[in-house]
Amino acid sequence: MNKFLGVLLLLSSFSLFSQSSDDEIQVKNIYNTALTNGHSYQWLDHLSNEIGGRLSGSLNAEKAVKYTKEQLEELGLDKVWLQPVMVPKWVRGPKEVAYIEAEPGSKNEVPICALGGSIATPKEGLKAKVIEVQSLQQLDSLGEEQIKGKIVFYNRPMQADLINTFRAYGGCVDQRSAGAREAAKYGAVGVIVRSMNLRLDDYPHTGTMSYGDLPKRKWIPAAAISTNGAELLSKMIKWNLDTKFYFKQQCEQYKDVESHNVIGQITGSEFPNEIMVVGGHLDSWDLGDGSHDDGAGVVQSMDVLRLLKETGYKPKRTIRVVLFMNEENGLRGGRKYAEVAKQKGERHVFALESDSGGFSPRGFSFDASDAAFNQVLAWKPLFKPYLIHYFEKGGSGADIGPLKNNEIAMAGLRPDSQRYFDYHHAANDTFDAVNKRELELGAAAMTSLIYLFDKYGVKTQPQPKIKG
Amino acid sequence: MNKFLGVLLLLSSFSLFSQSSDDEIQVKNIYNTALTNGHSYQWLDHLSNEIGGRLSGSLNAEKAVKYTKEQLEELGLDKVWLQPVMVPKWVRGPKEVAYIEAEPGSKNEVPICALGGSIATPKEGLKAKVIEVQSLQQLDSLGEEQIKGKIVFYNRPMQADLINTFRAYGGCVDQRSAGAREAAKYGAVGVIVRSMNLRLDDYPHTGTMSYGDLPKRKWIPAAAISTNGAELLSKMIKWNLDTKFYFKQQCEQYKDVESHNVIGQITGSEFPNEIMVVGGHLDSWDLGDGSHDDGAGVVQSMDVLRLLKETGYKPKRTIRVVLFMNEENGLRGGRKYAEVAKQKGERHVFALESDSGGFSPRGFSFDASDAAFNQVLAWKPLFKPYLIHYFEKGGSGADIGPLKNNEIAMAGLRPDSQRYFDYHHAANDTFDAVNKRELELGAAAMTSLIYLFDKYGVKTQPQPKIKG
Repeated sequence: MNKFLGVLLLLSSFSLFSQSSDDEIQVKNIYNTALTNGHSYQWLDHLSNEIGGRLSGSLNAEKAVKYTKEQLEELGLDKVWLQPVMVPKWVRGPKEVAYIEAEPGSKNEVPICALGGSIATPKEGLKAKVIEVQSLQQLDSLGEEQIKGKIVFYNRPMQADLINTFRAYGGCVDQRSAGAREAAKYGAVGVIVRSMNLRLDDYPHTGTMSYGDLPKRKWIPAAAISTNGAELLSKMIKWNLDTKFYFKQQCEQYKDVESHNVIGQITGSEFPNEIMVVGGHLDSWDLGDGSHDDGAGVVQSMDVLRLLKETGYKPKRTIRVVLFMNEENGLRGGRKYAEVAKQKGERHVFALESDSGGFSPRGFSFDASDAAFNQVLAWKPLFKPYLIHYFEKGGSGADIGPLKNNEIAMAGLRPDSQRYFDYHHAANDTFDAVNKRELELGAAAMTSLIYLFDKYGVKTQPQPKIKG
Repeated sequence: MNKFLGVLLLLSSFSLFSQSSDDEIQVKNIYNTALTNGHSYQWLDHLSNEIGGRLSGSLNAEKAVKYTKEQLEELGLDKVWLQPVMVPKWVRGPKEVAYIEAEPGSKNEVPICALGGSIATPKEGLKAKVIEVQSLQQLDSLGEEQIKGKIVFYNRPMQADLINTFRAYGGCVDQRSAGAREAAKYGAVGVIVRSMNLRLDDYPHTGTMSYGDLPKRKWIPAAAISTNGAELLSKMIKWNLDTKFYFKQQCEQYKDVESHNVIGQITGSEFPNEIMVVGGHLDSWDLGDGSHDDGAGVVQSMDVLRLLKETGYKPKRTIRVVLFMNEENGLRGGRKYAEVAKQKGERHVFALESDSGGFSPRGFSFDASDAAFNQVLAWKPLFKPYLIHYFEKGGSGADIGPLKNNEIAMAGLRPDSQRYFDYHHAANDTFDAVNKRELELGAAAMTSLIYLFDKYGVKTQPQPKIKG
């Protein structure tokens, strides 16, 4: 080794050491601040307990827009604004009623809820024989002969042996989203879907469904039944093939209404035109108060900007928090945000979404170039003391999806997923199911990742190889 | 490279590949069985909901001994037996009463509970001025002059910015365990301790305390106050230095009684004299039903032997499940087990304890030789698909502690710790706070580790270095 090279290596290792040490200090500072002086939990308390469920187009959704805008304004950001977006307005109406009639005159009441986007039953409700199926494909083999005039009962459970419960959800959700559309083609009069829940309990879980291009006259009502209810119905059908099901729901689709994405930003000191987005969705389903889905992501994203300010960090790039409207039944907010960004010629280099619940964070999944992903892998040791260990390529988030292009790196926070579907889209998705520390640890992990990408920039090209 | 060496390397890499692949299949089999056909959750349901809190010496503890022995017998193990052990019997008596008297005649009731091992107050209760302290050390500077005749109120909270909440517990628990003993030396008449809880809520958390070698006539009653109660009391004292505190508790220490460790084993097919223990403690505190502490560890340990059988694995070594009695207030079961093992000249090569709650498992901590620890590190890739990432040197478990010698490798399951102290030793440590999947994932991780140590043996010497 010649002297010059030796000195160069020595200097570069010093510089690496001091960088790494600065980063260690800043990440520790972020975590300490989040855990001892975070705001996520009190914001979530307000969103959940003072406002409540925030379905797109509802008065509560508008209250949430107003509240979060005010809260962002209090943070002293460089800019806070509302971005108008037209959203669908679906209203559940009075509580649904359902029972199993295993023999004439008997009534076993079971908990159901209308699926989001479904039509109502006739005013007096709907009663028909039930046919149980495990998949959409099974409809083809049964055919019109066995389906016509009946209620189709989709009862394929989530797969328990998958570690990632979102994969189990992905393997089931076609029953909810396309079940009514497909059954209607064979003349079914209604659809009952087993709730997307790994637990056996009494909560029906709603969620969006679509009639696709089915002509409106063919639309049939669709509802979810609790997992315990599904088990009971299945047993009753085995006991008597002529078992009937009755349900009544009075939901209604109104005209689109105007709502808003809520946006706030710290303008970058060096590269203001490089925008990094962090966000979650402000709307929720109507049954619970949407604490995990996605109140948690909203308040964590707000806290990212606050934690950067509290720890005295001045971003080089523009850090923007976006609270998207209408993820649940339309994704209109996410689409609008990307559309406006494109119109304005804004350059987005990174987007991070939190929409997997407020549970203990495990890491992030990335939709990014190898170059950007390798940057993250090099930061793994910084996250290790905080038990953030999961860094994998995969999806990011629904709301930031429309921003995708060749340049942007995208990521999703990945909390522990085991409890998520106990609460998802159900009446028990409430504030008490969120642990303050778990929520704050998520905000700290997100802030740390944003800090690192801001400090070092997002690599969009493969890093040049150093010759050995 | 010569030909011979080449063939040798090729063979050894084949053998490594096939080993690893077999292990991948067996670990997957263990996880799938745990998640789709585990018994942990139904056993815990019985322990928690049919039996309930299992304080040493109580009727419930004896019911738990009987129940778990029967359940182990049903598994068709090679041997199931009870190991007698004398345990302390402390009884709480009627629910405690306490109030803050911030001015004469005012009464602010607050939730307290007697600490395990404390004496009762006088029958009519105890009322005295309160002095708030943050540490045992602070007593020295206050001295008898300011302490005598008063109730000492220990109010140092758990440190919120520690990621490992057990460390935060360790930094506070001296107030509970030694607070009464130390305050009595300065003439205090009673002790109130802030609950070891990171959350603000209304549950007082009990736990063991000791008077050490303090003469019995100097013993003073000690109780825990809920964190909300502690905040209120602290405020009241600031408002009026003459604030008084009243409490009444009727707990009593009886003579030791006989109880049992519950033990079952699969006898090893090749090395029956190499014993590997897996266990948790059967006793619990009396306020809740002890689902997390340590019903979870008990049922997971039972399921380890069952999962090995269900997956068709025949252990080479003797795998023994030990359900220890009296971890909470004496550790008599752990000591007895080690004492008998020593008498019999039994050789224990590995011991694993689960006593950190039934939450999502993150990994294990090890008290083991470098050789054994390095074995585990080599297995990390097998655990990665199951999000088991934490493998560190550190403590193992209280009950297995007395087995420690130069040879044995010891480990503790490390679940996510964020929620643990929300429930620890409190009335809300109940079945509904345990998630079925999280519990089962812990059992699967434990079973996988036991499987690997059984298959490959436990290295007790440093591995010979291969020359380059």
